[in-house]
Amino acid sequence: MSKIDGVMSYYAELLNAELNKAIIADNNDYGILAEAMKYSTIDGGKRIRPILLLEFYKLFGGKSAEAVKFATALEMIHSYSLVHDDLPCMDNDDFRRGKPSCHKAYGENIAVLTGDALLTSAFEYASSVTDISPERVIKAINILASAAGINGMVGGQVLDILSINLDTAEGLKKMYALKTGALLKSAAMIGCVLAGGDEKIEHCQRYADALGLAFQIVDDMLDVIGDESKLGKPVGSDEKNDKLTFVSIFGMEKAKQTVIDLTVDAKNCIDEIGGNGEFLKDFADYLASRTF
Amino acid sequence: MSKIDGVMSYYAELLNAELNKAIIADNNDYGILAEAMKYSTIDGGKRIRPILLLEFYKLFGGKSAEAVKFATALEMIHSYSLVHDDLPCMDNDDFRRGKPSCHKAYGENIAVLTGDALLTSAFEYASSVTDISPERVIKAINILASAAGINGMVGGQVLDILSINLDTAEGLKKMYALKTGALLKSAAMIGCVLAGGDEKIEHCQRYADALGLAFQIVDDMLDVIGDESKLGKPVGSDEKNDKLTFVSIFGMEKAKQTVIDLTVDAKNCIDEIGGNGEFLKDFADYLASRTF
Repeated sequence: MSKIDGVMSYYAELLNAELNKAIIADNNDYGILAEAMKYSTIDGGKRIRPILLLEFYKLFGGKSAEAVKFATALEMIHSYSLVHDDLPCMDNDDFRRGKPSCHKAYGENIAVLTGDALLTSAFEYASSVTDISPERVIKAINILASAAGINGMVGGQVLDILSINLDTAEGLKKMYALKTGALLKSAAMIGCVLAGGDEKIEHCQRYADALGLAFQIVDDMLDVIGDESKLGKPVGSDEKNDKLTFVSIFGMEKAKQTVIDLTVDAKNCIDEIGGNGEFLKDFADYLASRTF
Repeated sequence: MSKIDGVMSYYAELLNAELNKAIIADNNDYGILAEAMKYSTIDGGKRIRPILLLEFYKLFGGKSAEAVKFATALEMIHSYSLVHDDLPCMDNDDFRRGKPSCHKAYGENIAVLTGDALLTSAFEYASSVTDISPERVIKAINILASAAGINGMVGGQVLDILSINLDTAEGLKKMYALKTGALLKSAAMIGCVLAGGDEKIEHCQRYADALGLAFQIVDDMLDVIGDESKLGKPVGSDEKNDKLTFVSIFGMEKAKQTVIDLTVDAKNCIDEIGGNGEFLKDFADYLASRTF
Protein backbone atom coordinates (compact mmCIF):
# COMPACT_ATOMS: atom_id res chain seq x y z
CA MET A 1 0.00 0.00 0.00
CA SER A 2 1.41 3.42 -0.94
CA LYS A 3 1.75 6.06 1.76
CA ILE A 4 -1.24 8.02 0.52
CA ASP A 5 -3.41 4.90 0.34
CA GLY A 6 -2.47 4.20 3.94
CA VAL A 7 -3.52 7.66 5.08
CA MET A 8 -6.75 7.49 3.13
CA SER A 9 -7.63 4.12 4.54
CA TYR A 10 -6.98 5.47 8.05
CA TYR A 11 -9.41 8.34 7.37
CA ALA A 12 -11.96 5.97 5.87
CA GLU A 13 -12.01 3.94 9.09
CA LEU A 14 -12.17 7.08 11.21
CA LEU A 15 -15.16 8.40 9.27
CA ASN A 16 -17.02 5.10 9.42
CA ALA A 17 -16.57 4.99 13.17
CA GLU A 18 -17.73 8.60 13.58
CA LEU A 19 -20.75 8.16 11.32
CA ASN A 20 -21.76 5.16 13.41
CA LYS A 21 -21.55 7.34 16.51
CA ALA A 22 -23.37 10.28 14.96
CA ILE A 23 -26.31 8.41 13.43
CA ILE A 24 -28.48 6.96 16.17
CA ALA A 25 -32.24 6.44 16.26
CA ASP A 26 -33.37 6.89 19.87
CA ASN A 27 -36.29 4.67 19.06
CA ASN A 28 -36.54 1.45 17.03
CA ASP A 29 -39.85 2.48 15.49
CA TYR A 30 -38.03 4.73 13.05
CA GLY A 31 -34.86 2.65 13.02
CA ILE A 32 -35.23 2.27 9.27
CA LEU A 33 -34.26 5.94 8.94
CA ALA A 34 -30.96 5.41 10.78
CA GLU A 35 -30.39 2.33 8.64
CA ALA A 36 -30.94 4.29 5.40
CA MET A 37 -28.71 7.12 6.67
CA LYS A 38 -25.90 4.66 7.37
CA TYR A 39 -26.49 2.88 4.06
CA SER A 40 -25.94 6.22 2.31
CA THR A 41 -22.83 7.27 4.21
CA ILE A 42 -20.81 4.41 5.64
CA ASP A 43 -18.15 2.80 3.40
CA GLY A 44 -18.86 5.39 0.74
CA GLY A 45 -16.60 7.48 -1.43
CA LYS A 46 -13.07 8.72 -1.00
CA ARG A 47 -13.84 11.05 1.95
CA ILE A 48 -12.09 13.88 0.16
CA ARG A 49 -13.91 16.65 2.06
CA PRO A 50 -13.28 15.31 5.57
CA ILE A 51 -9.64 14.63 4.65
CA LEU A 52 -9.16 18.20 3.45
CA LEU A 53 -10.82 19.59 6.55
CA LEU A 54 -8.72 17.55 8.96
CA GLU A 55 -5.46 18.07 7.07
CA PHE A 56 -5.91 21.86 6.92
CA TYR A 57 -6.83 21.79 10.60
CA LYS A 58 -3.54 20.01 11.32
CA LEU A 59 -1.58 22.30 9.01
CA PHE A 60 -2.68 25.31 11.06
CA GLY A 61 -1.76 23.60 14.33
CA GLY A 62 -5.22 22.38 15.40
CA LYS A 63 -5.11 19.91 18.28
CA SER A 64 -8.68 18.94 19.15
CA ALA A 65 -9.83 15.41 18.32
CA GLU A 66 -13.34 16.88 18.05
CA ALA A 67 -12.56 18.50 14.69
CA VAL A 68 -13.52 15.09 13.33
CA LYS A 69 -17.12 15.94 14.23
CA PHE A 70 -17.02 18.74 11.67
CA ALA A 71 -15.43 16.42 9.13
CA THR A 72 -18.27 13.98 9.74
CA ALA A 73 -20.85 16.74 9.40
CA LEU A 74 -19.36 17.75 6.08
CA GLU A 75 -19.49 14.18 4.81
CA MET A 76 -23.12 13.88 5.91
CA ILE A 77 -23.95 16.97 3.85
CA HIS A 78 -22.11 15.61 0.84
CA SER A 79 -23.95 12.29 1.22
CA TYR A 80 -27.39 13.90 1.62
CA SER A 81 -26.80 15.79 -1.64
CA LEU A 82 -26.09 12.51 -3.45
CA VAL A 83 -29.23 10.88 -2.03
CA HIS A 84 -31.42 13.77 -3.21
CA ASP A 85 -29.57 14.09 -6.57
CA ASP A 86 -30.32 10.45 -7.32
CA LEU A 87 -34.11 10.85 -6.78
CA PRO A 88 -36.40 10.08 -9.74
CA CYS A 89 -37.43 13.74 -10.00
CA MET A 90 -33.77 14.81 -10.12
CA ASP A 91 -31.09 12.74 -11.93
CA ASN A 92 -33.05 9.48 -11.54
CA ASP A 93 -29.99 7.33 -10.88
CA ASP A 94 -30.58 3.75 -9.77
CA PHE A 95 -27.00 3.11 -8.68
CA ARG A 96 -24.55 4.92 -6.48
CA ARG A 97 -21.11 3.73 -5.44
CA GLY A 98 -21.80 0.36 -7.04
CA LYS A 99 -24.98 -0.43 -5.12
CA PRO A 100 -28.66 0.55 -5.44
CA SER A 101 -29.21 4.22 -4.69
CA CYS A 102 -31.08 5.08 -1.48
CA HIS A 103 -34.51 5.43 -3.11
CA LYS A 104 -34.09 2.09 -4.91
CA ALA A 105 -33.17 0.41 -1.63
CA TYR A 106 -35.64 2.16 0.72
CA GLY A 107 -38.28 3.87 -1.41
CA GLU A 108 -38.58 7.43 -2.55
CA ASN A 109 -40.26 8.79 0.58
CA ILE A 110 -37.61 7.39 2.92
CA ALA A 111 -34.89 8.67 0.57
CA VAL A 112 -36.21 12.23 0.79
CA LEU A 113 -36.30 11.96 4.58
CA THR A 114 -32.86 10.31 4.70
CA GLY A 115 -31.40 13.33 2.93
CA ASP A 116 -33.29 15.70 5.20
CA ALA A 117 -32.13 13.87 8.30
CA LEU A 118 -28.48 13.73 7.16
CA LEU A 119 -28.47 17.45 6.45
CA THR A 120 -29.99 18.18 9.84
CA SER A 121 -27.74 15.76 11.72
CA ALA A 122 -24.74 17.49 10.20
CA PHE A 123 -25.58 20.70 12.05
CA GLU A 124 -26.51 18.80 15.19
CA TYR A 125 -23.15 17.01 15.24
CA ALA A 126 -21.10 20.10 14.34
CA SER A 127 -22.80 22.10 17.10
CA SER A 128 -21.96 19.40 19.66
CA VAL A 129 -18.24 20.25 19.52
CA THR A 130 -17.21 21.44 22.98
CA ASP A 131 -13.44 21.74 23.06
CA ILE A 132 -12.93 24.29 20.29
CA SER A 133 -13.82 27.90 21.07
CA PRO A 134 -17.51 28.71 20.45
CA GLU A 135 -16.55 31.69 18.26
CA ARG A 136 -14.66 29.40 15.89
CA VAL A 137 -17.37 26.76 15.93
CA ILE A 138 -20.07 29.28 14.95
CA LYS A 139 -17.91 30.71 12.20
CA ALA A 140 -17.32 27.20 10.87
CA ILE A 141 -21.04 26.36 11.02
CA ASN A 142 -21.77 29.52 9.06
CA ILE A 143 -19.19 28.60 6.39
CA LEU A 144 -20.64 25.10 6.15
CA ALA A 145 -24.25 26.30 5.78
CA SER A 146 -23.33 29.01 3.26
CA ALA A 147 -21.45 26.52 1.11
CA ALA A 148 -24.28 23.99 1.16
CA GLY A 149 -27.20 26.34 0.54
CA ILE A 150 -28.79 28.55 -2.07
CA ASN A 151 -25.57 30.42 -2.90
CA GLY A 152 -23.53 27.23 -2.95
CA MET A 153 -24.31 23.61 -3.58
CA VAL A 154 -28.10 23.82 -3.91
CA GLY A 155 -27.86 26.83 -6.24
CA GLY A 156 -25.42 24.88 -8.41
CA GLN A 157 -27.78 21.94 -8.49
CA VAL A 158 -30.51 24.25 -9.84
CA LEU A 159 -28.18 25.37 -12.63
CA ASP A 160 -27.44 21.72 -13.41
CA ILE A 161 -30.95 20.27 -13.45
CA LEU A 162 -32.38 23.24 -15.34
CA SER A 163 -29.32 23.28 -17.70
CA ILE A 164 -28.85 27.01 -17.18
CA ASN A 165 -25.96 28.31 -19.35
CA LEU A 166 -24.31 24.92 -19.49
CA ASP A 167 -23.50 25.37 -23.18
CA THR A 168 -20.52 27.62 -22.43
CA ALA A 169 -17.23 26.94 -20.65
CA GLU A 170 -17.95 29.84 -18.29
CA GLY A 171 -21.42 28.55 -17.43
CA LEU A 172 -20.10 25.04 -16.88
CA LYS A 173 -17.33 26.31 -14.59
CA LYS A 174 -19.79 28.37 -12.60
CA MET A 175 -22.16 25.45 -12.16
CA TYR A 176 -19.38 23.19 -10.89
CA ALA A 177 -17.91 25.92 -8.70
CA LEU A 178 -21.26 26.00 -6.90
CA LYS A 179 -22.44 22.40 -7.15
CA THR A 180 -19.23 20.65 -6.11
CA GLY A 181 -16.64 23.40 -5.59
CA ALA A 182 -18.37 25.27 -2.77
CA LEU A 183 -18.45 22.32 -0.39
CA LEU A 184 -14.85 21.31 -1.20
CA LYS A 185 -13.77 24.88 -0.53
CA SER A 186 -15.67 24.94 2.75
CA ALA A 187 -13.69 21.87 3.85
CA ALA A 188 -10.39 23.72 3.58
CA MET A 189 -11.86 26.90 5.08
CA ILE A 190 -13.41 25.13 8.07
CA GLY A 191 -10.16 23.31 8.87
CA CYS A 192 -8.38 26.65 8.74
CA VAL A 193 -10.94 28.56 10.83
CA LEU A 194 -11.30 25.88 13.51
CA ALA A 195 -7.53 26.00 14.04
CA GLY A 196 -7.46 29.81 14.07
CA GLY A 197 -5.57 30.18 10.77
CA ASP A 198 -7.98 32.81 9.42
CA GLU A 199 -5.34 35.15 8.10
CA LYS A 200 -4.31 32.58 5.51
CA ILE A 201 -7.83 31.56 4.57
CA GLU A 202 -7.46 32.86 1.03
CA HIS A 203 -4.67 30.40 0.34
CA CYS A 204 -6.93 27.59 1.54
CA GLN A 205 -9.68 28.78 -0.76
CA ARG A 206 -7.34 28.97 -3.76
CA TYR A 207 -6.01 25.47 -3.09
CA ALA A 208 -9.51 24.04 -2.83
CA ASP A 209 -10.78 25.91 -5.90
CA ALA A 210 -7.94 24.53 -8.00
CA LEU A 211 -8.34 21.04 -6.58
CA GLY A 212 -12.11 21.09 -7.12
CA LEU A 213 -11.92 22.19 -10.74
CA ALA A 214 -9.14 19.70 -11.49
CA PHE A 215 -11.22 16.98 -9.88
CA GLN A 216 -14.20 17.78 -12.08
CA ILE A 217 -12.11 17.83 -15.25
CA VAL A 218 -10.63 14.44 -14.34
CA ASP A 219 -14.18 13.17 -13.80
CA ASP A 220 -15.09 14.30 -17.29
CA MET A 221 -11.94 12.64 -18.68
CA LEU A 222 -12.73 9.38 -16.91
CA ASP A 223 -16.20 9.36 -18.43
CA VAL A 224 -14.40 9.04 -21.78
CA ILE A 225 -11.37 6.88 -20.99
CA GLY A 226 -12.18 5.33 -17.58
CA ASP A 227 -12.57 1.70 -16.62
CA GLU A 228 -16.21 0.96 -15.83
CA SER A 229 -15.42 -1.81 -13.35
CA LYS A 230 -13.12 0.43 -11.32
CA LEU A 231 -15.38 3.49 -11.49
CA GLY A 232 -18.42 1.52 -10.34
CA LYS A 233 -20.56 3.42 -12.86
CA PRO A 234 -21.09 3.34 -16.63
CA VAL A 235 -18.69 5.36 -18.80
CA GLY A 236 -19.63 7.29 -21.91
CA SER A 237 -22.81 8.61 -20.30
CA ASP A 238 -21.93 12.28 -20.92
CA GLU A 239 -21.58 11.73 -24.67
CA LYS A 240 -24.69 9.56 -24.75
CA ASN A 241 -26.65 12.29 -22.96
CA ASP A 242 -25.22 14.98 -25.23
CA LYS A 243 -23.82 16.62 -22.14
CA LEU A 244 -21.27 19.37 -22.58
CA THR A 245 -18.14 18.63 -20.52
CA PHE A 246 -14.67 20.11 -20.13
CA VAL A 247 -13.42 17.39 -22.46
CA SER A 248 -15.99 18.10 -25.17
CA ILE A 249 -15.23 21.84 -24.93
CA PHE A 250 -11.43 21.78 -24.67
CA GLY A 251 -10.49 18.39 -26.07
CA MET A 252 -8.60 15.74 -24.11
CA GLU A 253 -5.12 17.27 -24.42
CA LYS A 254 -6.06 20.73 -23.16
CA ALA A 255 -8.14 19.16 -20.39
CA LYS A 256 -5.09 17.17 -19.25
CA GLN A 257 -2.85 20.23 -19.31
CA THR A 258 -5.39 22.25 -17.32
CA VAL A 259 -5.44 19.57 -14.62
CA ILE A 260 -1.63 19.71 -14.45
CA ASP A 261 -1.63 23.53 -14.19
CA LEU A 262 -4.31 23.57 -11.52
CA THR A 263 -2.47 20.96 -9.50
CA VAL A 264 0.77 22.98 -9.63
CA ASP A 265 -1.15 26.03 -8.43
CA ALA A 266 -2.77 24.06 -5.58
CA LYS A 267 0.65 22.86 -4.42
CA ASN A 268 2.03 26.39 -4.61
CA CYS A 269 -0.68 27.53 -2.20
CA ILE A 270 0.49 24.98 0.35
CA ASP A 271 4.11 26.15 0.00
CA GLU A 272 2.95 29.75 0.49
CA ILE A 273 1.14 28.78 3.70
CA GLY A 274 4.29 27.08 5.01
CA GLY A 275 4.43 24.39 7.69
CA ASN A 276 4.18 20.68 7.07
CA GLY A 277 1.80 20.45 4.10
CA GLU A 278 3.39 17.46 2.37
CA PHE A 279 0.25 15.38 2.52
CA LEU A 280 -1.92 18.12 1.01
CA LYS A 281 0.52 18.42 -1.89
CA ASP A 282 0.62 14.66 -2.41
CA PHE A 283 -3.15 14.61 -2.20
CA ALA A 284 -3.45 17.11 -5.05
CA ASP A 285 -1.18 14.92 -7.18
CA TYR A 286 -3.10 11.83 -6.21
CA LEU A 287 -6.48 13.28 -7.18
CA ALA A 288 -5.12 14.61 -10.47
CA SER A 289 -3.70 11.25 -11.46
CA ARG A 290 -6.52 9.01 -10.32
CA THR A 291 -7.80 6.46 -12.77
CA PHE A 292 -11.00 5.48 -10.98
CA MET B 1 -58.80 43.90 16.09
CA SER B 2 -58.35 42.07 19.39
CA LYS B 3 -55.13 42.54 21.31
CA ILE B 4 -53.83 39.10 20.37
CA ASP B 5 -54.65 39.62 16.71
CA GLY B 6 -52.67 42.85 16.84
CA VAL B 7 -49.62 41.13 18.31
CA MET B 8 -49.85 38.30 15.80
CA SER B 9 -50.13 40.66 12.90
CA TYR B 10 -47.05 42.54 14.17
CA TYR B 11 -45.12 39.26 14.23
CA ALA B 12 -46.40 38.29 10.80
CA GLU B 13 -44.99 41.51 9.34
CA LEU B 14 -41.72 41.09 11.21
CA LEU B 15 -41.28 37.55 9.89
CA ASN B 16 -42.08 38.54 6.31
CA ALA B 17 -39.48 41.29 6.46
CA GLU B 18 -36.86 38.97 7.95
CA LEU B 19 -37.54 36.18 5.45
CA ASN B 20 -37.07 38.71 2.66
CA LYS B 21 -33.70 39.65 4.16
CA ALA B 22 -32.63 36.06 4.76
CA ILE B 23 -33.52 34.61 1.35
CA ILE B 24 -31.29 36.09 -1.30
CA ALA B 25 -29.93 34.54 -4.48
CA ASP B 26 -26.51 36.08 -5.14
CA ASN B 27 -27.04 35.32 -8.80
CA ASN B 28 -30.11 35.64 -11.01
CA ASP B 29 -29.36 32.39 -12.80
CA TYR B 30 -30.81 30.45 -9.90
CA GLY B 31 -33.22 33.21 -8.85
CA ILE B 32 -36.09 30.77 -9.29
CA LEU B 33 -34.88 29.00 -6.14
CA ALA B 34 -35.13 32.18 -4.05
CA GLU B 35 -38.55 32.79 -5.56
CA ALA B 36 -39.76 29.30 -4.61
CA MET B 37 -38.29 29.68 -1.11
CA LYS B 38 -40.18 32.94 -0.62
CA TYR B 39 -43.34 31.46 -2.15
CA SER B 40 -43.18 28.73 0.49
CA THR B 41 -42.51 30.95 3.50
CA ILE B 42 -43.74 34.54 3.10
CA ASP B 43 -47.33 35.30 4.11
CA GLY B 44 -47.70 31.76 5.35
CA GLY B 45 -49.24 30.33 8.49
CA LYS B 46 -49.71 31.71 11.95
CA ARG B 47 -46.00 31.94 12.81
CA ILE B 48 -46.63 30.07 16.04
CA ARG B 49 -43.04 28.85 16.42
CA PRO B 50 -41.34 32.22 15.93
CA ILE B 51 -43.86 33.86 18.25
CA LEU B 52 -43.16 31.32 20.99
CA LEU B 53 -39.42 31.74 20.55
CA LEU B 54 -39.51 35.52 20.75
CA GLU B 55 -42.01 35.65 23.60
CA PHE B 56 -40.01 33.20 25.73
CA TYR B 57 -36.89 35.19 24.90
CA LYS B 58 -38.62 38.33 26.21
CA LEU B 59 -40.01 36.52 29.24
CA PHE B 60 -36.47 35.62 30.31
CA GLY B 61 -35.24 39.17 29.80
CA GLY B 62 -33.63 38.80 26.38
CA LYS B 63 -32.77 42.14 24.76
CA SER B 64 -31.15 41.43 21.38
CA ALA B 65 -33.08 42.27 18.24
CA GLU B 66 -31.07 39.49 16.56
CA ALA B 67 -33.12 36.79 18.30
CA VAL B 68 -35.49 37.31 15.39
CA LYS B 69 -32.88 35.60 13.20
CA PHE B 70 -33.43 32.41 15.18
CA ALA B 71 -37.19 32.86 14.94
CA THR B 72 -36.80 33.17 11.17
CA ALA B 73 -34.57 30.09 11.04
CA LEU B 74 -37.18 28.11 12.93
CA GLU B 75 -39.91 29.22 10.52
CA MET B 76 -37.72 28.25 7.55
CA ILE B 77 -37.37 24.76 9.01
CA HIS B 78 -41.10 24.48 9.59
CA SER B 79 -41.73 25.64 6.02
CA TYR B 80 -39.20 23.25 4.48
CA SER B 81 -40.93 20.37 6.25
CA LEU B 82 -44.26 21.38 4.69
CA VAL B 83 -42.72 21.62 1.21
CA HIS B 84 -41.25 18.12 1.48
CA ASP B 85 -44.38 16.69 3.18
CA ASP B 86 -46.49 17.84 0.23
CA LEU B 87 -44.32 16.05 -2.37
CA PRO B 88 -45.99 13.37 -4.52
CA CYS B 89 -43.88 10.63 -2.90
CA MET B 90 -44.96 11.81 0.57
CA ASP B 91 -48.50 13.13 1.30
CA ASN B 92 -49.05 14.21 -2.32
CA ASP B 93 -50.91 17.41 -1.45
CA ASP B 94 -51.64 19.84 -4.26
CA PHE B 95 -52.62 22.72 -2.02
CA ARG B 96 -51.04 24.40 0.96
CA ARG B 97 -52.30 27.48 2.75
CA GLY B 98 -54.95 27.98 0.07
CA LYS B 99 -52.57 28.05 -2.91
CA PRO B 100 -50.81 25.43 -5.04
CA SER B 101 -48.14 23.61 -3.07
CA CYS B 102 -44.52 24.27 -4.01
CA HIS B 103 -44.13 21.28 -6.32
CA LYS B 104 -47.36 22.17 -8.14
CA ALA B 105 -46.12 25.71 -8.65
CA TYR B 106 -42.43 25.03 -9.42
CA GLY B 107 -42.10 21.34 -10.24
CA GLU B 108 -41.02 18.45 -8.10
CA ASN B 109 -37.26 18.88 -8.56
CA ILE B 110 -37.31 22.55 -7.54
CA ALA B 111 -39.55 21.69 -4.58
CA VAL B 112 -37.03 19.15 -3.26
CA LEU B 113 -34.27 21.76 -3.61
CA THR B 114 -36.44 24.51 -2.10
CA GLY B 115 -36.85 22.41 1.02
CA ASP B 116 -33.14 21.60 1.09
CA ALA B 117 -32.20 25.26 0.68
CA LEU B 118 -34.64 26.44 3.38
CA LEU B 119 -33.30 23.89 5.85
CA THR B 120 -29.73 24.93 5.08
CA SER B 121 -30.47 28.67 5.14
CA ALA B 122 -31.98 28.22 8.58
CA PHE B 123 -28.60 27.23 9.99
CA GLU B 124 -26.82 29.88 7.96
CA TYR B 125 -29.08 32.60 9.32
CA ALA B 126 -29.03 31.33 12.91
CA SER B 127 -25.23 31.16 12.87
CA SER B 128 -25.01 34.77 11.66
CA VAL B 129 -26.22 36.09 15.03
CA THR B 130 -23.43 38.22 16.49
CA ASP B 131 -24.77 40.01 19.55
CA ILE B 132 -25.78 37.04 21.65
CA SER B 133 -23.00 35.08 23.35
CA PRO B 134 -21.53 32.36 21.11
CA GLU B 135 -22.04 29.74 23.84
CA ARG B 136 -25.78 30.43 23.83
CA VAL B 137 -25.98 30.54 20.05
CA ILE B 138 -24.32 27.13 19.69
CA LYS B 139 -26.56 25.63 22.34
CA ALA B 140 -29.60 27.01 20.52
CA ILE B 141 -28.38 25.68 17.15
CA ASN B 142 -27.94 22.28 18.74
CA ILE B 143 -31.49 22.35 20.16
CA LEU B 144 -32.86 23.39 16.76
CA ALA B 145 -31.04 20.66 14.84
CA SER B 146 -31.93 17.95 17.38
CA ALA B 147 -35.61 18.90 17.23
CA ALA B 148 -35.69 18.90 13.43
CA GLY B 149 -33.74 15.70 12.79
CA ILE B 150 -33.94 11.95 13.12
CA ASN B 151 -34.95 12.00 16.79
CA GLY B 152 -37.46 14.79 16.25
CA MET B 153 -39.47 16.00 13.29
CA VAL B 154 -38.03 13.73 10.59
CA GLY B 155 -38.34 10.65 12.82
CA GLY B 156 -41.99 11.57 13.42
CA GLN B 157 -42.58 11.93 9.72
CA VAL B 158 -41.28 8.38 9.21
CA LEU B 159 -43.79 7.12 11.79
CA ASP B 160 -46.54 9.02 9.98
CA ILE B 161 -45.86 8.01 6.37
CA LEU B 162 -45.19 4.38 7.29
CA SER B 163 -48.20 4.37 9.70
CA ILE B 164 -46.11 2.87 12.48
CA ASN B 165 -48.27 2.18 15.56
CA LEU B 166 -50.81 4.82 14.61
CA ASP B 167 -53.67 2.57 15.63
CA THR B 168 -53.21 3.32 19.33
CA ALA B 169 -53.55 6.54 21.31
CA GLU B 170 -49.99 6.11 22.58
CA GLY B 171 -48.58 5.63 19.09
CA LEU B 172 -50.49 8.63 17.78
CA LYS B 173 -49.26 10.82 20.64
CA LYS B 174 -45.71 9.72 20.08
CA MET B 175 -45.88 10.44 16.36
CA TYR B 176 -47.23 13.95 16.94
CA ALA B 177 -44.78 14.60 19.79
CA LEU B 178 -42.01 14.04 17.26
CA LYS B 179 -43.54 15.28 14.02
CA THR B 180 -44.96 18.58 15.26
CA GLY B 181 -44.24 18.69 19.00
CA ALA B 182 -40.45 18.61 18.84
CA LEU B 183 -40.12 21.78 16.79
CA LEU B 184 -42.72 23.65 18.86
CA LYS B 185 -40.85 22.64 21.99
CA SER B 186 -37.57 23.79 20.51
CA ALA B 187 -39.11 27.24 19.96
CA ALA B 188 -39.74 27.69 23.68
CA MET B 189 -36.38 26.16 24.61
CA ILE B 190 -34.39 28.31 22.19
CA GLY B 191 -36.05 31.51 23.43
CA CYS B 192 -35.19 30.46 26.98
CA VAL B 193 -31.57 29.46 26.23
CA LEU B 194 -30.76 32.53 24.13
CA ALA B 195 -31.86 34.72 27.04
CA GLY B 196 -29.93 32.64 29.58
CA GLY B 197 -33.00 31.24 31.34
CA ASP B 198 -31.70 27.65 31.28
CA GLU B 199 -32.58 26.83 34.86
CA LYS B 200 -36.27 27.09 34.02
CA ILE B 201 -36.05 25.26 30.72
CA GLU B 202 -38.22 22.40 31.94
CA HIS B 203 -41.15 24.75 32.45
CA CYS B 204 -40.73 25.94 28.87
CA GLN B 205 -40.72 22.37 27.64
CA ARG B 206 -43.85 21.50 29.62
CA TYR B 207 -45.69 24.57 28.31
CA ALA B 208 -44.78 23.75 24.72
CA ASP B 209 -45.62 20.05 25.07
CA ALA B 210 -49.09 20.91 26.38
CA LEU B 211 -49.63 23.58 23.73
CA GLY B 212 -48.46 21.27 20.95
CA LEU B 213 -50.70 18.38 21.90
CA ALA B 214 -53.69 20.70 22.40
CA PHE B 215 -53.00 22.21 18.99
CA GLN B 216 -53.02 18.81 17.34
CA ILE B 217 -56.25 17.77 19.05
CA VAL B 218 -57.90 21.02 17.93
CA ASP B 219 -56.68 20.27 14.40
CA ASP B 220 -58.37 16.88 14.54
CA MET B 221 -61.56 18.51 15.87
CA LEU B 222 -61.55 21.08 13.09
CA ASP B 223 -61.27 18.33 10.51
CA VAL B 224 -64.69 17.21 11.75
CA ILE B 225 -66.45 20.49 12.59
CA GLY B 226 -64.34 23.16 10.87
CA ASP B 227 -65.31 25.65 8.18
CA GLU B 228 -63.59 24.70 4.91
CA SER B 229 -63.47 28.27 3.61
CA LYS B 230 -61.75 29.54 6.76
CA LEU B 231 -59.38 26.58 7.07
CA GLY B 232 -58.26 26.86 3.46
CA LYS B 233 -58.30 23.06 3.15
CA PRO B 234 -60.97 20.38 2.82
CA VAL B 235 -62.55 19.05 6.02
CA GLY B 236 -63.54 15.45 6.67
CA SER B 237 -60.34 14.16 5.10
CA ASP B 238 -59.31 12.14 8.16
CA GLU B 239 -62.55 10.18 8.19
CA LYS B 240 -62.44 9.75 4.41
CA ASN B 241 -58.88 8.40 4.66
CA ASP B 242 -59.82 6.13 7.57
CA LYS B 243 -57.23 7.95 9.62
CA LEU B 244 -57.20 7.45 13.36
CA THR B 245 -57.33 10.81 15.17
CA PHE B 246 -57.71 12.01 18.74
CA VAL B 247 -61.38 12.64 17.99
CA SER B 248 -61.98 9.16 16.59
CA ILE B 249 -60.23 7.62 19.61
CA PHE B 250 -61.62 9.75 22.44
CA GLY B 251 -64.80 11.20 20.97
CA MET B 252 -65.45 14.92 20.59
CA GLU B 253 -66.32 15.63 24.24
CA LYS B 254 -63.23 14.06 25.76
CA ALA B 255 -61.08 15.68 23.06
CA LYS B 256 -62.49 19.10 24.04
CA GLN B 257 -61.89 18.47 27.74
CA THR B 258 -58.32 17.35 27.08
CA VAL B 259 -57.64 20.59 25.21
CA ILE B 260 -58.99 22.57 28.18
CA ASP B 261 -56.86 20.61 30.67
CA LEU B 262 -53.72 20.97 28.58
CA THR B 263 -54.29 24.71 28.22
CA VAL B 264 -54.69 25.12 31.98
CA ASP B 265 -51.44 23.23 32.49
CA ALA B 266 -49.63 25.37 29.91
CA LYS B 267 -50.77 28.54 31.67
CA ASN B 268 -49.68 27.15 35.04
CA CYS B 269 -46.17 26.71 33.66
CA ILE B 270 -46.03 30.39 32.80
CA ASP B 271 -47.19 31.34 36.32
CA GLU B 272 -44.51 29.08 37.77
CA ILE B 273 -41.85 30.80 35.69
CA GLY B 274 -43.01 34.20 36.93
CA GLY B 275 -42.42 37.53 35.19
CA ASN B 276 -44.69 39.07 32.59
CA GLY B 277 -46.05 36.06 30.72
CA GLU B 278 -49.54 37.38 30.00
CA PHE B 279 -49.18 37.06 26.26
CA LEU B 280 -48.02 33.44 26.46
CA LYS B 281 -51.07 32.62 28.59
CA ASP B 282 -53.42 34.43 26.22
CA PHE B 283 -51.72 32.67 23.32
CA ALA B 284 -52.47 29.25 24.83
CA ASP B 285 -56.14 30.23 25.17
CA TYR B 286 -56.19 31.61 21.66
CA LEU B 287 -54.78 28.44 20.08
CA ALA B 288 -57.14 26.24 22.08
CA SER B 289 -60.20 28.19 20.99
CA ARG B 290 -59.30 28.76 17.34
CA THR B 291 -61.93 27.91 14.81
CA PHE B 292 -59.76 27.99 11.69
